[in-house]
Amino acid sequence: MQETSELREHFDLLPGERLDDLQRNHLQIIQNPERFCFGMDAVLLSGFAQVRSGDEVLDLGTGTGIIPILLEAKTKGRHFTGLEIQEESAAMARRSILLNHQQDKINIVTGDIKEASVLFGTSSFSVVTSNPPYMIAEHGLKNPSYTRAVARHEVLCTLDDVVRETSRLLKPNGHFYMVHRPFRLAEIICTLSMHRLELKRLRMVYPYVDKEPNMVLLEAVKYAKPRVTVDPPLIIWKSPNEYTDEMKNDYGY
Amino acid sequence: MQETSELREHFDLLPGERLDDLQRNHLQIIQNPERFCFGMDAVLLSGFAQVRSGDEVLDLGTGTGIIPILLEAKTKGRHFTGLEIQEESAAMARRSILLNHQQDKINIVTGDIKEASVLFGTSSFSVVTSNPPYMIAEHGLKNPSYTRAVARHEVLCTLDDVVRETSRLLKPNGHFYMVHRPFRLAEIICTLSMHRLELKRLRMVYPYVDKEPNMVLLEAVKYAKPRVTVDPPLIIWKSPNEYTDEMKNDYGY
Repeated sequence: MQETSELREHFDLLPGERLDDLQRNHLQIIQNPERFCFGMDAVLLSGFAQVRSGDEVLDLGTGTGIIPILLEAKTKGRHFTGLEIQEESAAMARRSILLNHQQDKINIVTGDIKEASVLFGTSSFSVVTSNPPYMIAEHGLKNPSYTRAVARHEVLCTLDDVVRETSRLLKPNGHFYMVHRPFRLAEIICTLSMHRLELKRLRMVYPYVDKEPNMVLLEAVKYAKPRVTVDPPLIIWKSPNEYTDEMKNDYGY
Repeated sequence: MQETSELREHFDLLPGERLDDLQRNHLQIIQNPERFCFGMDAVLLSGFAQVRSGDEVLDLGTGTGIIPILLEAKTKGRHFTGLEIQEESAAMARRSILLNHQQDKINIVTGDIKEASVLFGTSSFSVVTSNPPYMIAEHGLKNPSYTRAVARHEVLCTLDDVVRETSRLLKPNGHFYMVHRPFRLAEIICTLSMHRLELKRLRMVYPYVDKEPNMVLLEAVKYAKPRVTVDPPLIIWKSPNEYTDEMKNDYGY
């Protein structure tokens, strides 16, 4: 508590912002619940993604920077870049990174996913990650908050934009890791294939062992040969109040 | 036993053949273990497929007829056709159908999947099912038995042949049900999409709750809009000697 209030002064949290403990390596993140808070999706993606020593990693649509912050802490990647179109989110990400002393390893760039390959140059990353908006722009009611709408609906970029730019940004044999909703699986796989990103691994995330999955984790490799490994099911809850052992042991829930 | 030996005389089992009880409605099937015996794949597919009253159903590569035999017994489909290229398997299927008194509802045709839409005419079925060969022709050692090789490897037809002919054979909004191996998932989904069969439902079959899936069940609909439902996981074994409750209750294992 004390530390948090000291930091609050030090880092000048803005009205509505709060400082959350990531329960890992004393990492913290600045969020504003009226704008958007990261979800389990981002945490699972950062567990699913494999970043190797020397990798140059880009996170497309990084929001408050949760994915590079977690990946920097848990991997030996050389450098991490987060691209975010909303300046306020990017600014929060930058302040979190300073707070975590990760500024030598993570850079947050304000910019548009649709132009990412122009911004960074083609074949410039060995790993791209993304937790993109899941919903087609016309699907259902858009979120009344513009910030949340941008994070959840394809208002500012579509799946095709994310995948096309990823394919351009990756080096040959570079890896793309994405979390998405199962209902768009066919479109995701065909879009990957169209942009010469071959689906290599997939993991279904089921809330309970007897329920439909609500997330899917995907790994695609640029120019790879076709052959998919489907991982064992990732099951979140053992009972309504108890996470499964994997969630407790591997993700710290 | 007595019934079986009477039938054995009556139906003139050939050398190497045996009569297996399907544990459902007293259905039986003639198989020859030196040629090919149906697997759990076919049983799971016949549970996954939804056949409605009045449906005209075609099974592509029906082998000894296991899928139409089971579907005829458990659904109200109007008529079932099984297409099989190997005459000996087709003959076994026909004898099993007589044995089960299903000859008014099931017809076995000897012929080639690659020419199925010419044989039956386009838009002639409301449901197509298939448990096709899983392995690419060049993958690994082919089965030394030609019959088994044809059933398991794409020697006589490829995935593209099966999907292309299915798309031609189905009426608009007709349903295609297939069981396959997860390692070919990306290719399967892109091939379906290329032939205007939209993936609508998918179920992963996991041998154990903590293991990779070894089968995937797929439902695609001709000309449908994109939106996939991924079913809860189907888990086969609770422990090495005990099936899960779903396998016991729904599939009679």
